[in-house]
Amino acid sequence: MRRLKTVAVVGVGLIGGSFALALRRAGGVATIVGADRDAAALERATALGVIDTAAESAADAARGADLVFISVPVRQIPTVLHDVALAIDPTAVITDAGSTKEEVVRRAREEMRDRFPRFVPGHPIAGRETSGVESATVELFRGARVVLTPCEETDADAVDLARTCWEAVGARVALTTARQHDEIFASVSHLPHLLAFALVSELGSRDNASELFSFAAGGFRDFTRIAGSSPEMWRDIALQNRDALLAELERYEGRLAVFRELIDKGDGPALERLMREARSARHAWLSGSKRSPSSE
Amino acid sequence: MRRLKTVAVVGVGLIGGSFALALRRAGGVATIVGADRDAAALERATALGVIDTAAESAADAARGADLVFISVPVRQIPTVLHDVALAIDPTAVITDAGSTKEEVVRRAREEMRDRFPRFVPGHPIAGRETSGVESATVELFRGARVVLTPCEETDADAVDLARTCWEAVGARVALTTARQHDEIFASVSHLPHLLAFALVSELGSRDNASELFSFAAGGFRDFTRIAGSSPEMWRDIALQNRDALLAELERYEGRLAVFRELIDKGDGPALERLMREARSARHAWLSGSKRSPSSE
Repeated sequence: MRRLKTVAVVGVGLIGGSFALALRRAGGVATIVGADRDAAALERATALGVIDTAAESAADAARGADLVFISVPVRQIPTVLHDVALAIDPTAVITDAGSTKEEVVRRAREEMRDRFPRFVPGHPIAGRETSGVESATVELFRGARVVLTPCEETDADAVDLARTCWEAVGARVALTTARQHDEIFASVSHLPHLLAFALVSELGSRDNASELFSFAAGGFRDFTRIAGSSPEMWRDIALQNRDALLAELERYEGRLAVFRELIDKGDGPALERLMREARSARHAWLSGSKRSPSSE
Repeated sequence: MRRLKTVAVVGVGLIGGSFALALRRAGGVATIVGADRDAAALERATALGVIDTAAESAADAARGADLVFISVPVRQIPTVLHDVALAIDPTAVITDAGSTKEEVVRRAREEMRDRFPRFVPGHPIAGRETSGVESATVELFRGARVVLTPCEETDADAVDLARTCWEAVGARVALTTARQHDEIFASVSHLPHLLAFALVSELGSRDNASELFSFAAGGFRDFTRIAGSSPEMWRDIALQNRDALLAELERYEGRLAVFRELIDKGDGPALERLMREARSARHAWLSGSKRSPSSE
């Protein structure tokens, strides 16, 4: 890739920090400017050498940058897009790392107006158990999938630049529409999170919760690991992707009803068949994925 | 503990094999006799030194044994209890490793008749990803919980012996009723398995299943890990513990309906509160458990 003169990273947490580290390592950028509402995080990012310069605001960071990478909580993205759109050069490209896309795109269109074609909505499928710039690593996106969801209006050169940067840091880029993205992740990510939160919520609300938990083992721990995720983040994702998530939930409840009926009438063969098919589908997925799936 | 002369292990898989290895290591037994419907497994158990002698049948293994440990699939337990009850000395003790207890106890009462007081129903909360005697390890039960569910008729000395053996191999023994056991595990084990199987089953049945799975990440992998478990085993557990499991499922669906309503009406604060409480409950559980929870 051509080396970018300046990249602005707005939100210097795990994702923003890792993107900065990895793009620099790949030789893709000369100078990285960071911005963050959390002054302490910005200071740590500078001290750790993740960014070269700390800017006062997202707009300041974006001014003169070739690429603006927005990695803030998904609800804050529209505000940042608004500020950044007013500051960037006409040829600059903006991309984000938000976990939902339709709502981000809808708001981006409102906030960015004539700069909207320079925005390439994105979502890297990567993460770690820990957060914050201290956890940032140059390897976070190696082999991870990144979904870009350009619209009809999005400039082709902007999509190319975003794709090139992601590929430079080792990611595998997929293009979908924003709606496809949201439907896919409602099923393989947002719904499982909801199901895990609901289970721990239900058990945790009982009088004998600590007795119950004391008998829980490794299966329960893994099943509920995603219920240890950030409540703010998952509240926002659930609300932003409401329609797709509720549609997935309805399908899931339908399948659960099938299982319930089979158990209720004691239909062992049909129950075993469904379980066997599920196990095979999961096994095929895991043997088919070239590397073990990244965290999220 | 006093050293037992002979222990019979019926079903020399992961659990039976590990119990044999660990009890021998603890100096708790002189001779271990094994029995298994699978002749090849029995041969491997002998070759690996897990058992000293291979018996022709469960009854043969049990004859003259001080303790009979039954670690066969839960549906086969009644048949084994029947055969063993006819063969054992009046002072011998029988215990099992079945994942459900009420149905096992009900059938034990029928099959064992006057020998029933010698039966100590048990359930070790331990396992590994792999099965079979080759995976047996002396450490499997170290720190693991074992639930014993004696009945009113159960002889106190029988319970003591079972407890002593489990403690000798490093397990932490808890006593509950069979019903309490089944209710507890319906909530922290059987329901999560059902939920995971249902999710993979639903997604796996779609036309675009492989596309969906290709976007799944580490959260999905962990959430669905238990859907990789044995379909026969979980079919049997679901059917044997039907009433408790369906009751848990109903409670869970009720909680899911609360989440759905909050998402539907966009109530962010209430949604976040439930998620936050769930995360805290899980965190408290994990920080409270002295060791990381064992597998199952």
